[in-house]
Amino acid sequence: MTTELQFIRDLQAQFGTVPPVKIGIGDDGAVLDVSGDSEQVVVTDLLLDGVHFDLNVTSPFLAGRKAVAVNLSDLAAMGCRPTAAFVSLAIPRGRPQAATDFLCELYRGIQQMTDEFQFSLAGGDTNSWNGPFAINVCLTGVPFSGRPFLRSDAQPGDSVFVTGPLGGSLDGGRHLTFMPRLQISAWLSRTVEVRAMLDLSDGLSIDLHRMMEASGTAAEIFTSRIPIHSDVSAEWSSDKRLTAALSDGEDFELLFSVSGAVAETLQAAANDNAIPLFQIGRVTTGSGVRLIDSSGNSQILDVTGWQHRF
Amino acid sequence: MTTELQFIRDLQAQFGTVPPVKIGIGDDGAVLDVSGDSEQVVVTDLLLDGVHFDLNVTSPFLAGRKAVAVNLSDLAAMGCRPTAAFVSLAIPRGRPQAATDFLCELYRGIQQMTDEFQFSLAGGDTNSWNGPFAINVCLTGVPFSGRPFLRSDAQPGDSVFVTGPLGGSLDGGRHLTFMPRLQISAWLSRTVEVRAMLDLSDGLSIDLHRMMEASGTAAEIFTSRIPIHSDVSAEWSSDKRLTAALSDGEDFELLFSVSGAVAETLQAAANDNAIPLFQIGRVTTGSGVRLIDSSGNSQILDVTGWQHRF
Repeated sequence: MTTELQFIRDLQAQFGTVPPVKIGIGDDGAVLDVSGDSEQVVVTDLLLDGVHFDLNVTSPFLAGRKAVAVNLSDLAAMGCRPTAAFVSLAIPRGRPQAATDFLCELYRGIQQMTDEFQFSLAGGDTNSWNGPFAINVCLTGVPFSGRPFLRSDAQPGDSVFVTGPLGGSLDGGRHLTFMPRLQISAWLSRTVEVRAMLDLSDGLSIDLHRMMEASGTAAEIFTSRIPIHSDVSAEWSSDKRLTAALSDGEDFELLFSVSGAVAETLQAAANDNAIPLFQIGRVTTGSGVRLIDSSGNSQILDVTGWQHRF
Repeated sequence: MTTELQFIRDLQAQFGTVPPVKIGIGDDGAVLDVSGDSEQVVVTDLLLDGVHFDLNVTSPFLAGRKAVAVNLSDLAAMGCRPTAAFVSLAIPRGRPQAATDFLCELYRGIQQMTDEFQFSLAGGDTNSWNGPFAINVCLTGVPFSGRPFLRSDAQPGDSVFVTGPLGGSLDGGRHLTFMPRLQISAWLSRTVEVRAMLDLSDGLSIDLHRMMEASGTAAEIFTSRIPIHSDVSAEWSSDKRLTAALSDGEDFELLFSVSGAVAETLQAAANDNAIPLFQIGRVTTGSGVRLIDSSGNSQILDVTGWQHRF
């Protein structure tokens, strides 16, 4: 059995990075040097019936919307706006998903995102087969300003932020309806020097570990400061609620760090602009993530969250 | 039931083309204006077990190789070299395709293409599910020189060429082992003003119709000049052999037009450089494609070849 992380490491070792690629496998997206000093980011996600949505209960509109939205979340994490979408479909032959109505609704969901963020569906591929429904979306994008954000640029002394409350996304259906944080990413690009950023797709615990490992740093986060979404049952114990916020995944909020010196002014500017920001901890030297409770007790946070195994 | 052509037309009508996209849905790839006067092309193809290969008999090496090669053929048709690859996998849980050996061989097949044409595997997405194996590849590319080639630029008076013999690709297994025509595309870019180009993925008959429809032109092709591949049985009647060359598909040769004035010098230059070129006909005014036999009799060529229906 291979974990996704090990699989990605093996691929990085096997395949080199040739110009114009500047950043390849391992971040939310790849960075290409497209000409002179301008950079482009490319992201891709494959969504599968029965894994990322269930077409027995999920409408084709929301399935199409989600397929684009998760990629937009990756672009937001790279500090980029979208420029084009490429959508590939595997359509089950002779099943309801082969009907014109299904495809129309699916593309209406895609269009909600391309209209909202003003970019083109520029290509794709459509095939029918005897397997279940699958949709691959690939997006190109360009930085809102200057350079793309990477997950590897956190530095000791940085403050760590998230852009919204976490947990309960799958139970509450939020994973189908979330708004990718492009506006907040654009605002941050204009307002502050962002150090490291990624989007919370697999859960704060595993995603924060990924950022720290990529940056060669450690982090401390404070249990009392982790915002818990109202989709997480209020009747659960505080431990169970915290675990949901750390591990449920599919939050699609941004996780990022800025230098400690600007954290306070950033928080004030965010308040002035009604931008939701939650300062949850700080970056330190070393490795791993520590969780600090309200009494000041510290424990190692295990890697929990969603990893594909195959 | 919707044909693929109708489906693409509906999408073109539903989705507009917003800058930086210059050419969107409908060609072998999309053209993006990436900065100033430089253009980028993006292509994508989704390959499915049981449709584009059969993993009961096809090795994972050849499946991975084909998934990249068909996209490289699209780039060649746009007059572009590849700059980066993005590979998404749907892996059947608990099946042979989930084994490490399978994935290693698949990526060795991918690497044969990235090594041959010197570009990076720069990203992707990997998921496991209960469905069959699927692989989506998205490639970025840039023109060998000047502008990308489009399928819509044929003009009456042009000569029509193909870059190799046609037919029998599926029976002979050539669809798994073909070499994408990037070198010929590069040579043509340097040597001549190419008018229209596409790659023969669905068969000369349907693909030539597509080029003529996109260009607003008609074509005449000569049965005696259509090169028939040795994969097509020599024991078949000449009619059956011609039908194979026109309709089998998955030839992955280039189909292109140049002005009639340069056709002869192009053919001579190709001979000098051991570049295989076959002049099969000419572009005329009107619409549709006519087939002219050795006695000079002309008949309308029906649209035959592979179209997905769903």
